[in-house]
Amino acid sequence: MTKILNKTTIDEMKARVCEANLSLEQSKLVVLTWGNVSEIDREAGIIVIKPSGVPYETMRAEQMVVTDLDGNVLEENSLRPSSDLPTHIYLYRHFPEINAIVHTHSKNAVIWAQSGRNIPPYGTTHADTFYGEIPCTRQLTKEEVDTAYEENTGKVIVERFEKENLDPLAVPGILTIGHGPFTWGTSVKKAVENSIVLDEVAHMALFTEVISEKKTELPKYMLDKHYFRKHGANAYYGQN
Amino acid sequence: MTKILNKTTIDEMKARVCEANLSLEQSKLVVLTWGNVSEIDREAGIIVIKPSGVPYETMRAEQMVVTDLDGNVLEENSLRPSSDLPTHIYLYRHFPEINAIVHTHSKNAVIWAQSGRNIPPYGTTHADTFYGEIPCTRQLTKEEVDTAYEENTGKVIVERFEKENLDPLAVPGILTIGHGPFTWGTSVKKAVENSIVLDEVAHMALFTEVISEKKTELPKYMLDKHYFRKHGANAYYGQN
Amino acid sequence: MTKILNKTTIDEMKARVCEANLSLEQSKLVVLTWGNVSEIDREAGIIVIKPSGVPYETMRAEQMVVTDLDGNVLEENSLRPSSDLPTHIYLYRHFPEINAIVHTHSKNAVIWAQSGRNIPPYGTTHADTFYGEIPCTRQLTKEEVDTAYEENTGKVIVERFEKENLDPLAVPGILTIGHGPFTWGTSVKKAVENSIVLDEVAHMALFTEVISEKKTELPKYMLDKHYFRKHGANAYYGQN
Amino acid sequence: MTKILNKTTIDEMKARVCEANLSLEQSKLVVLTWGNVSEIDREAGIIVIKPSGVPYETMRAEQMVVTDLDGNVLEENSLRPSSDLPTHIYLYRHFPEINAIVHTHSKNAVIWAQSGRNIPPYGTTHADTFYGEIPCTRQLTKEEVDTAYEENTGKVIVERFEKENLDPLAVPGILTIGHGPFTWGTSVKKAVENSIVLDEVAHMALFTEVISEKKTELPKYMLDKHYFRKHGANAYYGQN
Repeated sequence: MTKILNKTTIDEMKARVCEANLSLEQSKLVVLTWGNVSEIDREAGIIVIKPSGVPYETMRAEQMVVTDLDGNVLEENSLRPSSDLPTHIYLYRHFPEINAIVHTHSKNAVIWAQSGRNIPPYGTTHADTFYGEIPCTRQLTKEEVDTAYEENTGKVIVERFEKENLDPLAVPGILTIGHGPFTWGTSVKKAVENSIVLDEVAHMALFTEVISEKKTELPKYMLDKHYFRKHGANAYYGQN
Repeated sequence: MTKILNKTTIDEMKARVCEANLSLEQSKLVVLTWGNVSEIDREAGIIVIKPSGVPYETMRAEQMVVTDLDGNVLEENSLRPSSDLPTHIYLYRHFPEINAIVHTHSKNAVIWAQSGRNIPPYGTTHADTFYGEIPCTRQLTKEEVDTAYEENTGKVIVERFEKENLDPLAVPGILTIGHGPFTWGTSVKKAVENSIVLDEVAHMALFTEVISEKKTELPKYMLDKHYFRKHGANAYYGQN
Repeated sequence: MTKILNKTTIDEMKARVCEANLSLEQSKLVVLTWGNVSEIDREAGIIVIKPSGVPYETMRAEQMVVTDLDGNVLEENSLRPSSDLPTHIYLYRHFPEINAIVHTHSKNAVIWAQSGRNIPPYGTTHADTFYGEIPCTRQLTKEEVDTAYEENTGKVIVERFEKENLDPLAVPGILTIGHGPFTWGTSVKKAVENSIVLDEVAHMALFTEVISEKKTELPKYMLDKHYFRKHGANAYYGQN
Repeated sequence: MTKILNKTTIDEMKARVCEANLSLEQSKLVVLTWGNVSEIDREAGIIVIKPSGVPYETMRAEQMVVTDLDGNVLEENSLRPSSDLPTHIYLYRHFPEINAIVHTHSKNAVIWAQSGRNIPPYGTTHADTFYGEIPCTRQLTKEEVDTAYEENTGKVIVERFEKENLDPLAVPGILTIGHGPFTWGTSVKKAVENSIVLDEVAHMALFTEVISEKKTELPKYMLDKHYFRKHGANAYYGQN
């Protein structure tokens, strides 16, 4: 059930989501109209998401689309929401700890998605943000694609996390096979950062494989060290 | 037969074609004087195309060249048209559904053209714009190169589309072997976008092959889903 | 023991360290909050280093952190120093000829670090700055990671230089395995330049291996020529 | 013998050489102080070249160095000329048709130089500027490196052109093994353009090899067509 949010809150959500979308282009994670960002206000049950197919040059905060958790558009004269909205909704419903989602077609992440491979944790740049490999979903079946494709994209993401008992905040992103990355976080800012990290890590992993003479995965104790240096109760990176 | 267009229409075509040429450089699809864009007014039988060998820094809309469909320059004191004009004309004559053409030497598309390979549809970024592989033409014969080379470049493009019964709007571009990409569309804007997409897709496909452990082409039902999500009667991407 | 430096000197150190940190981002060696630069005043026993986890957009010289050689923060209301401070201190203690240190996650250097390989001297771009291969440290043990990880990172760097009797000014940088590059120099400017060179050289070496038909290391007499053209008593590159 | 040039001519040469050096950095062909450009006035027997080791940020036309064809600096209070001056002089003496030379450490050209390979003419982007493969010099001997290294670099370049009877205007550049590219032309502008083209072509050739399933060199008749479309009596590219 949707509580009415006051206009200031919605305008702030729109400003954050719009700015985040624009930052995807500035960070060269997207071209043309690709990519989308959303944020949820869980108390109010409201999602703000990028409109579908709007070019970044002319994008303004007012154009962001407000929906409820069933995907109903809540404002009059709204643009259509991103066609990936049902994926976002599915993720918000199943990952209660996240408040923002980012989808891009960033080059290096897409390359791994197209190869259908998980990205192995080859280094500390990876471990600083992703606690273990970055998973790639299974292929959707023809039935899953023909019916409710975008929702089923969310479903195969969640399926993978449940199957391997992964924590969405410890592994804040995934590759959807043949498609591209989804990342998330406790805030829009965090979710965007995770997209930037994912693409950097994907680039580094690609060429690590090109020049490695033997398998070089990070030892588990290094993965632990770097991840927990930045996350959790004993983190000592950053300011308080 | 050429109908006289009023000056405003021609000036608008020139402005669009000039801006599109400049956008190729901004999108890093071309350097120096490489690349060319044209637009056709089919009713008037008039083509506006980039002049040959003019640097992007000093390019102005007035310099765009106006020709008829036989390649005759229609304005006095005109610069020479792009040397690739006969390719553009051949394509306009055989693909009646297109109104603009773009040729670049964008790095990744050229790499595939030089390897003489079609770009396989490895992902949805590809399928969103190109319905199936992006073809690479056959090698021209010595005779085709020595006589009417540019027109014959158009001929081998059309030959490939006819042989495989391809729809130029469903596959809005091709690689000419050893040379580079031509893309097209219903508008200059669309044709430029298709060049941007082609180069992105070419980059992603290249490195997908580098890291893939097995062949990973997109299933046909995913190709269908993504292409028809954006094109045709049942498209639901973008605004109305 | 720490001598009190006058405020002007500290402010100048802060300005140099801040500017150097910002230049890492401008040179595309880092994204987000990655990387850190420090400078030492050996007479005063004072180090100035980047604060931990501060974004480059809002970074100001005043925020730089002043510590002694035991890592004690010397100013009130200071931000926390970079978590890599103990590595910097260990290097300053063991390499008395250096006055500045830079750590980045620059893409190409990280790729070699992740592959666990030394970068061979394939060309004169390498030899102009690094006299011989750029070493990659051994893997730290679980014990070294679990206790005093950052200090031990310094230890394995120094261990490598001592074992091979390397001169830190002739080989002004190293890769820490699975992590990334540290470079240094007699000044902040030099240390940053060495980071830029290391990443360029890492990129060139990577693709040299991709296309080389046989091993192509620079002959020793070319390495000597290029290194000593720029360094030492008989150098004749640059101005006096 | 050196004729005295009037100051206006020298200032114009300095302005062109300085601007060309700066354009190398803007085109991302060099970083730091790498690269150098020179121009010759053959009638006056005067060369203007970049000073050695001056950063691009502060480079000004007045700093360009004026020498005669024996390398003697002709102005008082001059900076030192680029250490590569003897290579430039050797080339000017043996290639009378060229008036400007550019040396860079551009990434992709260096990669081929480090691999010790000639760049095969894989496409028309190559053929538009280079009539045939871009040669890579032989390795200099220890004696050639230890004595008059820079002059001998010129010597092995000329040796290759003489041995294969190459025309320096038809193949306006070369790779010096383990080092990097030299390009030239009838003007500074042309020589810089040739450096840009060489790096583009080097990039495209590298990845053409990565994805090619079989050898794909351009047929000789295509090489001829594209080269002579732009050069010589029957050229029809560009404006008159």
